[in-house]
Amino acid sequence: MTDALPRQAVNKAADDRLALYDALLCLQTPQEVDAFLADLCTPAELRAFAERWAVARLLDQRLQSYREIALEAGASPTTVVRVARFLKDMDNNGYRLVLDRLKTKA
Amino acid sequence: MTDALPRQAVNKAADDRLALYDALLCLQTPQEVDAFLADLCTPAELRAFAERWAVARLLDQRLQSYREIALEAGASPTTVVRVARFLKDMDNNGYRLVLDRLKTKA
Repeated sequence: MTDALPRQAVNKAADDRLALYDALLCLQTPQEVDAFLADLCTPAELRAFAERWAVARLLDQRLQSYREIALEAGASPTTVVRVARFLKDMDNNGYRLVLDRLKTKA
Repeated sequence: MTDALPRQAVNKAADDRLALYDALLCLQTPQEVDAFLADLCTPAELRAFAERWAVARLLDQRLQSYREIALEAGASPTTVVRVARFLKDMDNNGYRLVLDRLKTKA
C-alpha cells in the first residue's frame, strides 16, 4: 500500500519515455527531426547533443588525442572524457550501435 | 576574410546537427533509441524530454486545464506554458507533425 504512489510514478516515467521513443521513431527525414527537436529541446541542449555526438565520432576514428578532439569539436575536455566513458565503459552500447550501423550504411 | 572563422563555426555546427539527425534516423526500435539516448543524454535531460512530450500530448487532447496537466504530467506550470507555446505559437510544427502522425498510426 505504501509503495503504490512511487510505483505508479515509476511506471508513468517509463511510459512517458516509451512515448518519447515512439515519437522519435516516427520521424522520417532530417527536416522532421529538426522540427521535432526544435520544439522539444532548447538550442543549448541541441548544441550539446550535436557536440557530444561529434566527439563520439571523432573518438571512434582513433586518430586524435582527447585534447585534439576537444579542440576540433569545440568541446570541453570534460565532455570528451565523459563521451569516451559512455563509448567505452558503459553498457548501453548506444553510441557503438549507431557508429557501426552508419559505417555499414556508408 | 574576417568572418572566415565564425562562418566555419556556423557550418560546423550545422554539420554536427545533421550528423545527429542521421544518427537518430537510423534507430529502428524503442530499445535502440533507449540505448542511444542513454549514451547521449543525462538521466535528467531524458526525464525532461519525456515530461515535455507527455505535456504536449495532454495539451493536444484539450481535456484538461494547464494546472491539471501540470499535475498529471508531474511538470511545473512553467513547463506546461512553455510546451504550449511551442505547440501553438512557434513555427517549427514539430510537436504538431508527430502528434498528427501518431494519431493516423493508432
